Formats: sequence, structure tokens, C-alpha cells
Amino acid sequence: MPYQAPVSEFRYILDHVVGMDQVAATERFAEATPETVEAILTEAGRLCQDVIAPLNRNGDLDPARLENGVVRTSKGFAEGYKAIAEGGWVGISAPAEFGGMGLPHTLTTVFNDMISAACLSLGLNPLLTQGQIEALEAHAPDWMKQMYLPRLISGEWTGTMNLTEPQAGSDVGALRSKAEPNGDGSYAVTGQKIYISWGDHDFGGNVCHLVLARLPDGAPGTRGISLFMVPKYLPNEDGSLGEANTLKVVSLEHKLGLHGSPTCVMQFDGAKGWLVGEAHKGMAAMFTMMNNARLGVGVQGIGAADGAYQHALAYALDRKQGKTPVEGTGTIVDHADVRRMLLTMKADLFAARSIALACAVALDMSKATGEAEWEARAALLTPIAKAFGTETGMRAAETGVQVHGGMGVIEETGAAQYSRDVRVTAIYEGTNGIQAMDLVARKMADGGEAAQALIDEMQAVAEEARARNGDLGDPVWQATESLREATEWLVAQKDLNVRFAGAVPFLSAFARVLGGHYHLKAAMEEAEDGPRTKLARFYINRLLPEHVGLLAQSMVGSTDLYALRPEEMYA
Amino acid sequence: MPYQAPVSEFRYILDHVVGMDQVAATERFAEATPETVEAILTEAGRLCQDVIAPLNRNGDLDPARLENGVVRTSKGFAEGYKAIAEGGWVGISAPAEFGGMGLPHTLTTVFNDMISAACLSLGLNPLLTQGQIEALEAHAPDWMKQMYLPRLISGEWTGTMNLTEPQAGSDVGALRSKAEPNGDGSYAVTGQKIYISWGDHDFGGNVCHLVLARLPDGAPGTRGISLFMVPKYLPNEDGSLGEANTLKVVSLEHKLGLHGSPTCVMQFDGAKGWLVGEAHKGMAAMFTMMNNARLGVGVQGIGAADGAYQHALAYALDRKQGKTPVEGTGTIVDHADVRRMLLTMKADLFAARSIALACAVALDMSKATGEAEWEARAALLTPIAKAFGTETGMRAAETGVQVHGGMGVIEETGAAQYSRDVRVTAIYEGTNGIQAMDLVARKMADGGEAAQALIDEMQAVAEEARARNGDLGDPVWQATESLREATEWLVAQKDLNVRFAGAVPFLSAFARVLGGHYHLKAAMEEAEDGPRTKLARFYINRLLPEHVGLLAQSMVGSTDLYALRPEEMYA
Repeated sequence: MPYQAPVSEFRYILDHVVGMDQVAATERFAEATPETVEAILTEAGRLCQDVIAPLNRNGDLDPARLENGVVRTSKGFAEGYKAIAEGGWVGISAPAEFGGMGLPHTLTTVFNDMISAACLSLGLNPLLTQGQIEALEAHAPDWMKQMYLPRLISGEWTGTMNLTEPQAGSDVGALRSKAEPNGDGSYAVTGQKIYISWGDHDFGGNVCHLVLARLPDGAPGTRGISLFMVPKYLPNEDGSLGEANTLKVVSLEHKLGLHGSPTCVMQFDGAKGWLVGEAHKGMAAMFTMMNNARLGVGVQGIGAADGAYQHALAYALDRKQGKTPVEGTGTIVDHADVRRMLLTMKADLFAARSIALACAVALDMSKATGEAEWEARAALLTPIAKAFGTETGMRAAETGVQVHGGMGVIEETGAAQYSRDVRVTAIYEGTNGIQAMDLVARKMADGGEAAQALIDEMQAVAEEARARNGDLGDPVWQATESLREATEWLVAQKDLNVRFAGAVPFLSAFARVLGGHYHLKAAMEEAEDGPRTKLARFYINRLLPEHVGLLAQSMVGSTDLYALRPEEMYA
Repeated sequence: MPYQAPVSEFRYILDHVVGMDQVAATERFAEATPETVEAILTEAGRLCQDVIAPLNRNGDLDPARLENGVVRTSKGFAEGYKAIAEGGWVGISAPAEFGGMGLPHTLTTVFNDMISAACLSLGLNPLLTQGQIEALEAHAPDWMKQMYLPRLISGEWTGTMNLTEPQAGSDVGALRSKAEPNGDGSYAVTGQKIYISWGDHDFGGNVCHLVLARLPDGAPGTRGISLFMVPKYLPNEDGSLGEANTLKVVSLEHKLGLHGSPTCVMQFDGAKGWLVGEAHKGMAAMFTMMNNARLGVGVQGIGAADGAYQHALAYALDRKQGKTPVEGTGTIVDHADVRRMLLTMKADLFAARSIALACAVALDMSKATGEAEWEARAALLTPIAKAFGTETGMRAAETGVQVHGGMGVIEETGAAQYSRDVRVTAIYEGTNGIQAMDLVARKMADGGEAAQALIDEMQAVAEEARARNGDLGDPVWQATESLREATEWLVAQKDLNVRFAGAVPFLSAFARVLGGHYHLKAAMEEAEDGPRTKLARFYINRLLPEHVGLLAQSMVGSTDLYALRPEEMYA
């Protein structure tokens, strides 16, 4: 079945669950009126379902390939990309002075969700450019903004992130790429970078590489790293493409999924680049790009979950097999366990999507108001949105395969593609383990203040719900209380490794409870037999209880992890 | 890293956890002495790690293909199969009078575990033949046994199962294949069958298809189905291969994984076949094969989990990345979360393996003693072994990918292959949903007697453990008590669909608690700081608590599943 953009679902979540009205009430985002939001959702939805979604199978069957040093993209991708660029969709939240729409990041997040559902591999391209725009806006010298921003925002040029090297993955500080001053304000960048998504393509224009490298006087580790803009073609003063830079794609990776997205090994041989931000402060500049990208990757998972859900639901509503004890459609949707699988996908999808959009709203509010509370909220929610969004994507895609039965593993049905494509999202932009460590360490360096503030809000809603939807309000209230206790326990652990030992289950539990909170909010805004209340009941009765086991695991400590010596870990 | 057969692990589980000594004490299996068991484990391990494991990547990179109607298998597979056949490994548990070793099925189960870890796609071939041998032994007429059994047992010929048709998957009764009497005792079988694993190959010999079809007077549904032996070549009286039968491979499926195993669409055009068992009783005969195969498929998942675990552990012990708060190996194994992932894989693997081997022991005891209690135990454990074994395989393979970080999605590392190959095991031989329905309906048609008998045993061990390992015994005892209550609740539900609505989480919870029981047994047999006690502590503290959420979900009932109307299931 073709993808259908869930426009009314987005509107409901924005209006009734995550408080988009607060964003529209700020001066900065005054243009985000209900009419504008409606227009953006509708038009973006139309693009994604009519133009982008039909490309998804091509990306898998006709992977990007390297021919004579140049990347040739999947059939139809160049036209699809052109439609994205011409619609102005790269620059929804980019500054108006450089040609962007200047709208809230929340709307970019909705767009990223839809394009990820439609075609994850092509959608990754503008996602990277969005991050680069943010990084340049915050850190680039003025001349660079003037040259690059309008062209990135229009989609004429695209952006990449060059962090990883074979010996420097999660540990970025171990990188060896070097930058030597050329004496004219530019630098000669040399080194090899791996896992560079969309490191090249045949869409035309420039490919703008943001590259982390070390200056001659850079200290070892992350503190001696600087960020450089290293374009594929050196732009002339008028912005036309000049001579080719001394960089090349050495090879493309042969990956489990996301075949439409070329994953490049890049070689920089004294390539000309310019400093972005201050010398040795490259990590800080890169983090501007990465935090944005982390939410974006979480949303990739959520979009993939939606794609997989719609695909499985359409199959289930068509497939006849076996008799059931209930009267119904005559299809496998009548089977209790098929229902359970589909509703689990749908309920998780709602939870993950609400978390991501709440994170986006906090980002926008932080930008619009400058208030520390909003900044802390966005910082807290980012790793949760990333890890839970991608977990949801993986789980939904697996469940989608299972709903298909034997057809699920036959590639022609497309169900398996969702599971292959989404897999990397739990790994790139910081593995989900790294996200969890970020949550329990950096994001709780405030003594758990931001987390407890959010838990207060959750409890207040649950209290209110008790009066009206007691069967829903009670379990959510209890769950928030358990989450509060676990948060206090974690924050009290001075040994960081004790926190790390429970980080992943803690993050999952936090997301589980937060998901219950948003389901509850959605239910409270409609009639008692409304569809959102039914889905909330499903989530709260069936999925929310998972937090008990997760919180138990998050408070075990680290001793048991190191009890087995490495040589005892073999059978 | 090459696969290392965990011979001492198997011996420990057989000797100290699942009570293999009871099997060896029976008259029927008196030959299964400790020396014989040791020899079987060692030799099978050697074959799997030295001969079979090196073929695994070939199966993926050089898939089986159809050339001019004939299947060409992956490079090295024919030689690998020859080694399996010549070693007598197809017939470990086959009757000695037809050339088998006549040893317990428990040892076949160990062999299936090891060969699945080494190469899932090739290992599936003898697994199918084992099942066919069982079915023929139980149901075939004498002349057929004389003709087929010796050749299947020697591995000269191989066997397949032909159940599924496009419209008849989980609902086998919907099949349309027909069988017409030829008047000479044979039948003309006509129809199309799909998903026929190893439906053809180039290993030589005959391919013996067991085919479900309906006789002209067969009633609709499962009660009118008969089982036929339909060989690729019609054997001459001396067993030499005669003329080709009128059947063919129409096409091979293009699958997510298991590329080395040809999955055939088979066309039977009045192909000559002979009845196996009574007319219209084909389902009963097929179930002999399927029950065996269900345990076998569970063990495929377990083997895959072991393969993925060893692969990930070797990578982690080699990969250096980042500093950790603890002193250790200097590799990523020092990171708390990497430890957590690896130990989760290992602890789950132990639990699933113990459950499967306990199921095999019950099968053997049932055969050897004819006691109804053993038969009921085996019947109860089969769906749990199948579903939890394959879930463990999938989860371990996914975790193995995650341990590899970015390398995990690069196909060359081999980590992703485990996840692709194992995926179908949760679907074929009855989806895991079907297994769970079998558990809560058919396997509890005894009023939960068999389940409660097992829970009694688990509680007795936990009671005993409380004295010595209180921190381990208590939580297991509590978990068994919760499982008992949930079992009573389920059995009390007269509306089968209420049971079905909680079937999958109930099965998972049962497996989780049972896994705790076997970990506890393993711990009680060694010193308090022994490696199995450490692993048991990890499992009991971290993974066992998952049963709380699962049991809660298993008792929600079915109302919430049908609350959303199908049209409300779209966003």
C-alpha cells in the first residue's frame, strides 16, 4: 500500500499533546499560524506520499554505486531530490535572511517524519543539510554564511558531516585527520573519513563537507579538534563552481540497508578548507549539528515505524487466513495476536512521535524565549527521542515482518526493507548506548532537576486524569512515581559507571512512562470512547507495565557486569 | 572469529541442569553412556567448527540459484553436506535397524544447535530429513520404510515438507493440492506448494517430498487432508534412481536471509506419490514431523544466538574505543553497556538452550518410558522452546549488530548476516504467535496440569536455593508464584480469544521464569563464585524482572484489542 501522510494525526499531537500553541505565541515564531501549519503539513504530506514514497523500493533494488570515482544514485532519486529542494523543504526552519522559511523546528521535525516514512535513504540527504545549516548559522564566519547558507537552504548544494575514522568512532577524540594553515586563511585538510552518508551524489551543485581535523598545535583528544568547511568544488566569488578540491570518494560501503544512501569512505589529500568557529573548538560547533541530527535520527526511526505500520496494516486488512472466534473483516486483522501486534506498533509510534515533537517544541521555545528551562528540557529529551524513536522503528519494522508471516522475509513485499533500512539509526549519530550514557551523566549533571521537572508535569496530568479516566490516570501516576524514585537513585550514584550500568534500561523506562503521559494527554482531550482513548488504554494496560522490569534493571549497579572475567565470557 | 563448539557448556547443561542421566538410565537409551555422549559432542563439535562454519559466508554471498530448472547450491555446500552424511549425523537418533545410531534426541538437539551456529542455511537440510525420518518411522507402510529410511538416514537422500500454498499458510486446511488414485496403489499428486526449504539441490541422490494433498473424497478443512511421499526420482526396486517424477522447481524466493538454503516454489503435475499413514489422517502424520521440527527450529534460533554471541564477543575483545572508568582489557568489553549487551546475549542463550534441551530430554523420556507425564512435559515445552529459542536468536543477533557499532551494518563483518538468517525462524514451522496460541489452548486443555507440575518443580528448586543462594532463590520463587497465578487465570478463561489475547506475552513470561529456574539449577551445582553463579545473578537481577510486565500484559483480556475499529487503525 502506498504511504499516506498522517496529517490529521500530526495536527492532533501538535494541538493537543505537545503544546505547539506556545511556540506560535512567541514573537519569533509568530508566523507559525494555524493556517501556515496546516499548509505546511498538507503540502509536505503530498510531496512525501506522491513523489518520494514511490522511490523507496528503487533505493533498495538499485543501490547508489561508485562509477569512476563518482556516485550514481538510485533511479528517480535526482528528480525526487529536485522536488524537495524546489519546494523549499530543506529550509523550513532556516533563517529567512538567507532564504529559509524561518518556521519552527517542530515543523521540520514533522517533515522529517514524513519523508523518513516515505523513503528513509533519500530523506537522510536533506536531514544532513539541515544540520549543516544550523552549524554554519551558529559558528561560521560571515563570508561563509553569505556563500554557503543561501545555496544549502535552497537545496542547490548539500551538506555532510565528516567525523568518523576507522580508529575514531564513538571516541571522536582519537581522530588523526590533520589541517595545516595555507597562509591565506585557508587550510590543507588531510585524512580519511568513513561512514560519510551522502558523501557524493549526482544531483548537481556542490557537496559541502564539514570535517573534523586537528591543527598542528591541537592538543590530543577532543579538545584539540577543529571544524572545517571543505567543499567538493572550490566556489568562485559569484558562487559558481570552481575547480575540484583534492578530495575523493574511495569506496562505498556494502550495507544491510539504506542502499539508496551512498555511505562513502572519503579521502582528503591536502584539500582546501576553512575554519568554522574557533580553532580547537570544533567539537562544540559539531555538537550544534549533532544535537539537531540526533533528534532527526530519532525521527527517522519514527517515520520508518509509520511506514512499516501502514505497510503491515494494509497487508493484514487484505490477507485472509484461518477462522477466528470473533466476527469481523474476514481478514487476519480479526486474530487477537495480529491486533496485538498492529496496536503495539501504533501505540509505540504515537508515544515516540509525541516525545520527538515535545523535544522539537522545547528546542523552539528555547530559541524563542532563551529560557534555561526550555533549553534543559530539549537537552533532556534529545537522547530519549533519539534512542526510543529508533528502537520504536526497529521494533515496529520487526513486528511488521512478523505480521506478514512467510511473506515477511520475501524481499519483494518490502516489509523486510523497513527493518534493514532502519537498523543503522540505532547506531549512527551516537549509538543508543551513547544516548543513554548522555542521559544519565551529562543530562543529569543538574542533579536531576530537568528530569524531575518533567516528572512533576507528568504527575500533574496524571492527577488530573484520575478524576476523569481513573483506570488510565492511576497506572500512569504510579509509573511516574517509580520513575521519580529511580531518577533519584541514579542521581545519587557518584560512581558514573553505576549509572552507565543501568543507562539503557533507564532510558527505555523513561520513554515508556513518558509515552504513557502523552497517551493520557491525548485521551483527556476527546470523548471517553474516542479512538485515542482506546489506544491509550491499550498502551497503558499492556506496554506501560514494561517499565517495572526496566527500572529494576537500571538500579542493579555495575558489580554484576564485571563479575565474569573476559576469559569466562566464552562458553 | 571462527565458531568454537561449546562442548563443555553442553556437557554441563546435560549433566547438571536438564537431567540427561535419567535418559541414559533407561533401557532404550542405555547406549548413551557418558563416554558416548562425550564422543558425540566432541566429534560433532569438530565437524561444525572446522568443516561447516567456514561455509557460512559463502551461503550468503553465493546464494543457491535455479539454473535450467535445477538448484545449484552455494560454493562448498555439497562437500559440507557430504561430511555431514558420511559422519552419520543425519541419523543420530534414527532407528538402528535402518542404520541410525539410535541415540537420544537430546544429542540430535545438541548437534542441531552446533550446526545452526556454524551455518544455519546448510544445517536446515539435515534438520528437515530428521523430521521426515520420524514421520516415516511412525506412519509409513513397511515397504516404504525399507526403501526410504536407510537412504535418508545415511544422508544419501534428503527430505522436505510440503505444506504451504499461497492461500494456505497458518491455515493448512485451506490447501487445494489434490491426489487421485492411479489404481496401482499410487496416487497422482497435483498442486503448487510454496516456501519449500531445500526443495532441490545438487548433492546427488533423491529429494523425498512429503506432500499434503486432498483425496477426491477428502472433506474440506484439515480433516480431509492426506500425506504422500512424492520423490523427485521414482526409485527402482533396488533403490537406484529411476525416471524423474512429474514435479519441478518453478522458482526460488529472494529472501532477507538464509540465502544458502533454496526456498522453492514446487509444482506437482500428477506426480506419482504414495500414501503415508491413513487416508485423511495426513495432519496427524505431519504433526509428528512438525513437532520435531518445532523444537529443531527453536534450536536453530539458539544456535544462531551462539554464533552471533561468539562473533560479537570476539569483536568486542579486539576493538579499542574510548576510555572507561574501570581498568580492564583496554577494549570495548570494559564499557558497562557493552558488558550488559554481551551478558544479556549469553544469559539468554543459556536460558533458551536449557529449555530446548529439557524439552529434548522430556521427548526421550516419553519415548523410553511411555509415561504420560513426560509426554505432557515435552508437549508443553515444545512451543516455548520454539518461540523463545527463535526470539533469543533474533534478539542476540540484533544485539550482536549493536555491539559492532557502525561495523554492524557493514555486510562484510558478518554480524548482520546472523540477524537476516535467523529472522525466518520466528515465522516458519508455525509463527511464534501460533506457538503461543498452542501453549495457552491445546497445551492447557489439561486444565493447566502439565504447566503447574513444571511450576511445582521450579518452586521446589527455588525453595532449596533460598537456603544457600537466598539472593537468587527468592526472586525466582516469587516469579514462579506470579507465573502460577497467571496460569490459573488463563486456564480459568473459557473464552479462548481471551487466552489468545495474552498468549505471546504469557509464553515469553513463562520462558523468562523457566530460564531463571535453569540458571538457578546451574548455580546450585557449583561454588558460590563460579562463573555460572555470576551469570545466574546477572539473569535473575536484570532479565527475570521482565516477567512482571509480560504477565500483566497476558491478563488484560481481549476487549482492548477490538476496541479500535479497523478504519480507526489508520492514523
